[in-house]
Amino acid sequence: MFISKSFIPILKNNPSEAKIKSHQLMLRVGMIKQSSAGIYSWLPLGFKVMKKIEQIVRDEQNKIGAQEILMPTIQSSEIWKESGRYEDYGEEMLRIKDRQDREMLYGPTNEELVTDIFRSSVKSYKSLPQLLYHIQWKFRDEIRPRFGIMRCREFYMKDAYSFDVNDEEALFSYNKFFLSYLKTFKRLDLTAIPMAADTGPIGGNLSHEFIILAETGESKIYTDKRIFDLKSDGTKIEKNSLNDLRKKYEQFYSVTDEKFKKDEFEKKVDESNRLKTKGIEVGHIFYFGDKYSKPMGCSVDLPGGKKDFVKMGSYGIGVSRLVGAIIEAKYDEKNEIMKWPISIAPYEVAIIPMINKNDTSSLKKANDINLEFQKHNIETIIDDTDENFSSKVKKMNLIGAPFQIIIGKHTEGDLLEFKETGKESKKINLAEIIKIIRTQKIKN
Amino acid sequence: MFISKSFIPILKNNPSEAKIKSHQLMLRVGMIKQSSAGIYSWLPLGFKVMKKIEQIVRDEQNKIGAQEILMPTIQSSEIWKESGRYEDYGEEMLRIKDRQDREMLYGPTNEELVTDIFRSSVKSYKSLPQLLYHIQWKFRDEIRPRFGIMRCREFYMKDAYSFDVNDEEALFSYNKFFLSYLKTFKRLDLTAIPMAADTGPIGGNLSHEFIILAETGESKIYTDKRIFDLKSDGTKIEKNSLNDLRKKYEQFYSVTDEKFKKDEFEKKVDESNRLKTKGIEVGHIFYFGDKYSKPMGCSVDLPGGKKDFVKMGSYGIGVSRLVGAIIEAKYDEKNEIMKWPISIAPYEVAIIPMINKNDTSSLKKANDINLEFQKHNIETIIDDTDENFSSKVKKMNLIGAPFQIIIGKHTEGDLLEFKETGKESKKINLAEIIKIIRTQKIKN
Repeated sequence: MFISKSFIPILKNNPSEAKIKSHQLMLRVGMIKQSSAGIYSWLPLGFKVMKKIEQIVRDEQNKIGAQEILMPTIQSSEIWKESGRYEDYGEEMLRIKDRQDREMLYGPTNEELVTDIFRSSVKSYKSLPQLLYHIQWKFRDEIRPRFGIMRCREFYMKDAYSFDVNDEEALFSYNKFFLSYLKTFKRLDLTAIPMAADTGPIGGNLSHEFIILAETGESKIYTDKRIFDLKSDGTKIEKNSLNDLRKKYEQFYSVTDEKFKKDEFEKKVDESNRLKTKGIEVGHIFYFGDKYSKPMGCSVDLPGGKKDFVKMGSYGIGVSRLVGAIIEAKYDEKNEIMKWPISIAPYEVAIIPMINKNDTSSLKKANDINLEFQKHNIETIIDDTDENFSSKVKKMNLIGAPFQIIIGKHTEGDLLEFKETGKESKKINLAEIIKIIRTQKIKN
Repeated sequence: MFISKSFIPILKNNPSEAKIKSHQLMLRVGMIKQSSAGIYSWLPLGFKVMKKIEQIVRDEQNKIGAQEILMPTIQSSEIWKESGRYEDYGEEMLRIKDRQDREMLYGPTNEELVTDIFRSSVKSYKSLPQLLYHIQWKFRDEIRPRFGIMRCREFYMKDAYSFDVNDEEALFSYNKFFLSYLKTFKRLDLTAIPMAADTGPIGGNLSHEFIILAETGESKIYTDKRIFDLKSDGTKIEKNSLNDLRKKYEQFYSVTDEKFKKDEFEKKVDESNRLKTKGIEVGHIFYFGDKYSKPMGCSVDLPGGKKDFVKMGSYGIGVSRLVGAIIEAKYDEKNEIMKWPISIAPYEVAIIPMINKNDTSSLKKANDINLEFQKHNIETIIDDTDENFSSKVKKMNLIGAPFQIIIGKHTEGDLLEFKETGKESKKINLAEIIKIIRTQKIKN
């Protein structure tokens, strides 16, 4: 992609309305544009990142055998009256009357709708377990939307639902998602820690939030540091292995604000291992048994001929929120340098040729290099404008391709000035550069 | 995918509420489930098809240099008041008040919002042309939703917008989409004919609908048969080549109801070439100049220092509607046989083993074949249930994988019973089968 043809409207300075760094960067570099309070359009740069995150989330859902569906954004109020949540949900639910004066709403979550789908489709324990997920826009009418896409009103979310015949099987499903989430965040180059959490309006009695550390986080967290060294590698999708994984994490004290008890923290965690900090919630999983299946009459035939309500859990990842969370975790605000993890980078390499009116040889070289990258499926962005060199580098540091190639008058022969964004450059040839980038891509 | 683990709730009979064959098949085979009037959930089978269609649409947009963005579903009424369409749009617009009592709406289309994005981002003719598109849910509050997803309320649509400095460049953009649409529909194995059309509430004076023939279509069409023999092959993305392409199509009389004039039809088309029939609209493109840019003050600096309003067009494809339209075009209702084009088939091969209580050797063979297919990235669905054989075949005929393999007691040695769905079977070995399927995939 050539900058001159791209739709990447970059601002000279940080917009004053943005208070946290993800909001600043996203507006500054034209990833998003606000369309009304708490509602954003995603411009090409932001869209590319979000789609890549979505694809990783999808891939890790598929790997545990979850099947993708897509529920609509607009729901009827009927099913929410069945579950009893229509009144409870309060003003965050965007309530709508259609032209026939029917009570509708913009779904803030989908427990009711997926239960309705399930009860009319599945009749026997033989068809269980079922794991269904969708990635869809949701709406929560926040009273004070803020922090850009971190606390907005219309947001993009993956929510999954599990259906099982009994508690034991349901916990097996729960643990599959527990593993899937650890793997998903790892592929996004995030260290996300599962923490015991309150269940809030979703309900139930078993729940984990997945939190990444960030000063701007809204969740206070209290944890044993050693939890950051744990790994999920080698875990198999079978009951014992998954149980062991959850136990391994649960041996360390690690809770959010609502569950925090000072005594317990100090008793269970040595002073040297105590960590009190802030974090951003990027995922949340719940087990709530028959909380929805019972009032909504969602049961299956059991082996002996009896019936029972299915046992359900739900599992969310904020896909649009992750874009902001990753910026919070990765953006070097002071030096204005963003380096996206290569797995979700909008472009993998930025090519910055110095261009003068009388000398476009650098641009020609950039084009040749670009053709070579295309052959290797490496995505590039090339600054083909005649702006001065330092403003070009500044721009590319914000766009955040993880690698940069600089082509100037000192570029001679086969050697190119190549660097990881934000680090020192070295002179190597194109074949070596391609090898480095491809190796990085395979790892992630 | 094994049928026993899948979420494909199949009905024994056609549901009585469905009047047209796409609606019947989609409910029957569990592709969709209605959640409220004119609003549907997409279950795994329907979702897979829709996603593949979406990907082809996306790919052909990218090929003409359009950049993908994503605008939100909920819009502010402000911009619609600026363009003057807020009152005009009538009751089909779903109007919403949020908790702060602000007037919002669920976007039925996006001319206003994209113009708002553009005017705050682009200031100079140097950044033109720009082609922006998004694929997003829309809502039109139909008074009588019917025919399943063909005339529903919440629907999935690709809409693109072009921005140019003058009419000549704008027509170049228009023609790029003209070509892109012909190619898109061809990859979906549809013959879609561009027809001069009225512009309706979008406005402007140049417009084509892309229509496929189907008895259940809501559009009456009058055309010169010879238009069906035209091809876009060899057209280049340059002004003259694209102009020639449009002229080639426009030489033949071909209009929808609103533009039909009997005299003209009879004068321009020999009786032997006249075709009066019905069709389904699957795409619609518009050129409308400064209809939105002028009232919304969206202008750019011109070379000489003056300013002018940008010239815009818009370009829609109904992605969810295409799922239904393809069924209307391809489903053999009488014999209850669906065969999806391989480019968008939910599965590429169905494997149907005969399974008895005492003999599961066919299932074992099916598993082995499946592993081989996986190595070649061929997607399979296997009926691993112990239902009787004829009901298994019936089910697979509805699911519509374009190829079937039957494994029964007559399957001996290396030879397998293989067929194109709905055709005669032949006995060939697995290597040959893989070759046939891969060849088909590459072609499409």
